[in-house]
Amino acid sequence: MGTLSAASAADPHAGSATTTAFLGLGAMGYPMAAHLARQAAASGGRALVWNRTEARAQKHAEHYGSEAVSLAQAARADLLFTCLPTSAEVDDLIAALTPHLRPGTVWVDCTSGHPDAARRQRERLAALGVKFLDAPVSGGTGGAEAGTLTVMLGGPADEVEAARPHLAFAGKVVRVGETGAGFAVKAINNVLLAVNLWAAGEGLAALGRGGVDLGAALSVINASSGRSNASEHLIPQRVLTREFPATFALGLLAKDAGIALDVVQSAGASAPTLAQVAGLIRAASHVVGPHEDHTAALKLIEQMNRQEIK
Amino acid sequence: MGTLSAASAADPHAGSATTTAFLGLGAMGYPMAAHLARQAAASGGRALVWNRTEARAQKHAEHYGSEAVSLAQAARADLLFTCLPTSAEVDDLIAALTPHLRPGTVWVDCTSGHPDAARRQRERLAALGVKFLDAPVSGGTGGAEAGTLTVMLGGPADEVEAARPHLAFAGKVVRVGETGAGFAVKAINNVLLAVNLWAAGEGLAALGRGGVDLGAALSVINASSGRSNASEHLIPQRVLTREFPATFALGLLAKDAGIALDVVQSAGASAPTLAQVAGLIRAASHVVGPHEDHTAALKLIEQMNRQEIK
Amino acid sequence: MGTLSAASAADPHAGSATTTAFLGLGAMGYPMAAHLARQAAASGGRALVWNRTEARAQKHAEHYGSEAVSLAQAARADLLFTCLPTSAEVDDLIAALTPHLRPGTVWVDCTSGHPDAARRQRERLAALGVKFLDAPVSGGTGGAEAGTLTVMLGGPADEVEAARPHLAFAGKVVRVGETGAGFAVKAINNVLLAVNLWAAGEGLAALGRGGVDLGAALSVINASSGRSNASEHLIPQRVLTREFPATFALGLLAKDAGIALDVVQSAGASAPTLAQVAGLIRAASHVVGPHEDHTAALKLIEQMNRQEIK
Amino acid sequence: MGTLSAASAADPHAGSATTTAFLGLGAMGYPMAAHLARQAAASGGRALVWNRTEARAQKHAEHYGSEAVSLAQAARADLLFTCLPTSAEVDDLIAALTPHLRPGTVWVDCTSGHPDAARRQRERLAALGVKFLDAPVSGGTGGAEAGTLTVMLGGPADEVEAARPHLAFAGKVVRVGETGAGFAVKAINNVLLAVNLWAAGEGLAALGRGGVDLGAALSVINASSGRSNASEHLIPQRVLTREFPATFALGLLAKDAGIALDVVQSAGASAPTLAQVAGLIRAASHVVGPHEDHTAALKLIEQMNRQEIK
Repeated sequence: MGTLSAASAADPHAGSATTTAFLGLGAMGYPMAAHLARQAAASGGRALVWNRTEARAQKHAEHYGSEAVSLAQAARADLLFTCLPTSAEVDDLIAALTPHLRPGTVWVDCTSGHPDAARRQRERLAALGVKFLDAPVSGGTGGAEAGTLTVMLGGPADEVEAARPHLAFAGKVVRVGETGAGFAVKAINNVLLAVNLWAAGEGLAALGRGGVDLGAALSVINASSGRSNASEHLIPQRVLTREFPATFALGLLAKDAGIALDVVQSAGASAPTLAQVAGLIRAASHVVGPHEDHTAALKLIEQMNRQEIK
Repeated sequence: MGTLSAASAADPHAGSATTTAFLGLGAMGYPMAAHLARQAAASGGRALVWNRTEARAQKHAEHYGSEAVSLAQAARADLLFTCLPTSAEVDDLIAALTPHLRPGTVWVDCTSGHPDAARRQRERLAALGVKFLDAPVSGGTGGAEAGTLTVMLGGPADEVEAARPHLAFAGKVVRVGETGAGFAVKAINNVLLAVNLWAAGEGLAALGRGGVDLGAALSVINASSGRSNASEHLIPQRVLTREFPATFALGLLAKDAGIALDVVQSAGASAPTLAQVAGLIRAASHVVGPHEDHTAALKLIEQMNRQEIK
Repeated sequence: MGTLSAASAADPHAGSATTTAFLGLGAMGYPMAAHLARQAAASGGRALVWNRTEARAQKHAEHYGSEAVSLAQAARADLLFTCLPTSAEVDDLIAALTPHLRPGTVWVDCTSGHPDAARRQRERLAALGVKFLDAPVSGGTGGAEAGTLTVMLGGPADEVEAARPHLAFAGKVVRVGETGAGFAVKAINNVLLAVNLWAAGEGLAALGRGGVDLGAALSVINASSGRSNASEHLIPQRVLTREFPATFALGLLAKDAGIALDVVQSAGASAPTLAQVAGLIRAASHVVGPHEDHTAALKLIEQMNRQEIK
Repeated sequence: MGTLSAASAADPHAGSATTTAFLGLGAMGYPMAAHLARQAAASGGRALVWNRTEARAQKHAEHYGSEAVSLAQAARADLLFTCLPTSAEVDDLIAALTPHLRPGTVWVDCTSGHPDAARRQRERLAALGVKFLDAPVSGGTGGAEAGTLTVMLGGPADEVEAARPHLAFAGKVVRVGETGAGFAVKAINNVLLAVNLWAAGEGLAALGRGGVDLGAALSVINASSGRSNASEHLIPQRVLTREFPATFALGLLAKDAGIALDVVQSAGASAPTLAQVAGLIRAASHVVGPHEDHTAALKLIEQMNRQEIK
């Protein structure tokens, strides 16, 4: 069984003979765990998986050669990965695993969690000799499948370096600061997504009411200075097409924007625009529904303007 | 002397023997007019230039083979291009040129103007037999030099097609609607730039106060869903470097954001986020100074947070 | 027939033998004109009234002793009062009356109009020898009936003083500046009403979701520093009761908030909060309906929070 | 020594023979404790006072007949009152008093505290047999001196009724809900104060830039629908006079607005306007200084508009 030390960071075979466990095989976790299974196969390690509904773990094992295990078995891995809706579910898992965890394990939490939770969870696990890294990811289900996710890590530099070779699902790995910093950056990224998306929606609704062709307007904006990931990809693919495929739920974006506000407040910072849009996204989640795709937030803008964005 | 008709749009030598005049050789106009001069040289046409301070026109003529002329001479061109700070300066030029204009001329206004002004100016010039197209550009001084500007045109489709071959400074030309639509789309593009820039500034200030490394955070955001043109280019190149090179003035961005608000109001639309940020950009222009680069708006955020963004 | 001069301001019988005409007997105009009729009766003057639907003018004449007249007859009055939905309707009336107006008449416009319109209208009427004062009122239908309206006047000081004794519907008359200043102050007052109302709605919705008794919370706020006219009167009487009596239409509040934004923009001012709320009120008008009472804007807040305010 | 039971609420001599202790003789606490001393003198009870700097407690005793005591002595009172800058200072006092507290005591916290802290503090004190009520006050130093403060109480109804007769500094006492509800309502009240104040500042700055007389404008608004406590009292007395007397610190208003945002977020509510203004008030605290009077927040508006509000 492999050891996780700072030294291993420089070792090209660092992943060899390591046992990983992935807990939570949701839309993101399922393809992420597949990359861990491929790395294990290539390096002689093991890739355990666990899911609340066991059948999904069994299916993962059949497709990717991972091993579906119990929580108690998963707790014995060298690295534990979690990717859950919120930090509350991570708290629950920590409680459930506490009797089974052993010193030396590294818990890498890919949830879009809360910085306060990260600090609390790290402290709680430290009492068991387990290290905790906040390691949220960006890139969506597409990035998870392609193994090109961006991982933003919070925690001590040596621990981050030790974990780095094992992040087989990542295209880019950046340590952004101490414990909680990963979650903080993820939350700010997501509230920026929310702002860029919402603002583009407002602008298009106004142009639409004024009789401007929105496809033409968007093509111009996307060749100009006002463009963003939201205007270049999300709105053409999801809004103008009226498809709104539910890959990232509006309720989760509202949750992330709320975390961003907590980050702002904890820092004693002033962010009136982020705060305003966080409120509007929360409103959209109430009006449009938390399980709709996050781009469906623009349906509230459509109501506010009596104007479809298409 | 060439004629401008819809038919010429399909003619690969459409620019041949055409006389253009470019009025206003500012940071944008100077390199834009250079492309007209090159096209004239290649096609046997003429490229006239005029500037309020005549020496600058003389210099242009020496460098690019354009012809520095008087306003009265410029007025006789087939196509008149203007690229001025605001629609008010275009109004002044129309007044000054009125005695000299002749029917058949096409006035292509590349100013980031006001849709209401476009409609008024088109009507005023129509009385003289002159056509007016609103044709604002995006791409900055870099795009102007490279000849890769995006042009967003408002006006009748046949007039737009007739003008299209003569836009030698353009990388992308899109007709977005009737007269005024070009200015409207440009204003919305610029207020989106303002929102994306401002929001990223707020997010970075909060992260900075929280002890996060901003270079690392920005590299992550730029590989993630919250990225925008502002976060990918403007902030790394101009803000984090503390250079704030003055290529696009903050006062002009504030003016454009104000036009966007007028577009919103004229359409009876609701755009609370655009409106809020337009107000904050106006504030930044008052606090930081209208002649600073538009990215220096973030210096107001820095004051609001007692935190440098670097 | 009385004359209107600055001297008359000091004359306790200034209203004597004056002929007034009130054009537009809506919810506000009808009771306002009644006060003019009473003053005329007491002073030996005449009070003419005109309305688009003539029957309403007839009814006014029967009830209050005013004289229902044609537009041409009304145009011969010493003072012409208008109280219409927007400045556009005033423009229409000016056009209709132009052939009939005579020098010396004073036009007192009590519409919640646009400062730009005031300047244009004053200039237009000046060509006919007619003076124009913008004189919007505040106090609602209750204040109109009681004769306690607040009148905010824009125009030269001597003209304001000459008109002052004839404002029989007023409890308070203040000259706030030159032409257009009356409309500007009215628009700012109304956007402040919108902000105070909307903010109180947001706060109550949040408290309601948190299980706080809203009647108790409001009674506390109204004895504390966060109170406003909106929290003290509008919300207890109209929102908590679920009555939303339509005395001042939401669409007109949205219009006034839009004028306030124009005032802000014309002045080169920065008012991000007013701008944001103006956008939200416009949204409420689209979602809830422009003919609902302005307090029904809070129904959008209720949707945004899935929480009734009661 | 008196007992505190629900029954005593109906007893006109409820305060008789009760020992109160007031901890924290700041700008609010000092005059509040004076009312407790007067009530004690009238009813045969005792009024203990304690302050971090003991001299201030001695002075209070000399002026009002209270008794300056040690923390350990204060802990033996029937009712303990605290009025401190934030909940953190209350946490500190609870820790310091824990060895000395005895079952049956009621702790009435008049701090503008945090609802989460209230729930935590109540639980912590319950373990010692001590009851905790959140009881923030509104009315400022003027209300504290006059004994006309509004008290908003959170906690079980019977405990609130038992405490009610002892709130000698109150003009109005309202139970608004369970533990934490008092702090929640106070926070919402204060963010409404912030919104009403800030919005009026924006409106006046815009009018001022437009050449309108601000004293006249304010007198009109205060006779109209846009008025608020901020426009009627704070701005005429503190801003237009340029006095900004520091009775309620800007930093504390920013703190309260932040608590309001937490209330909004905890409730899953959407309050974009409150959130935006909370951010702007935080900015003002950074720019103008946290120890300035809260009305000095308008100095940031003045910078944002290059326009004095006077």
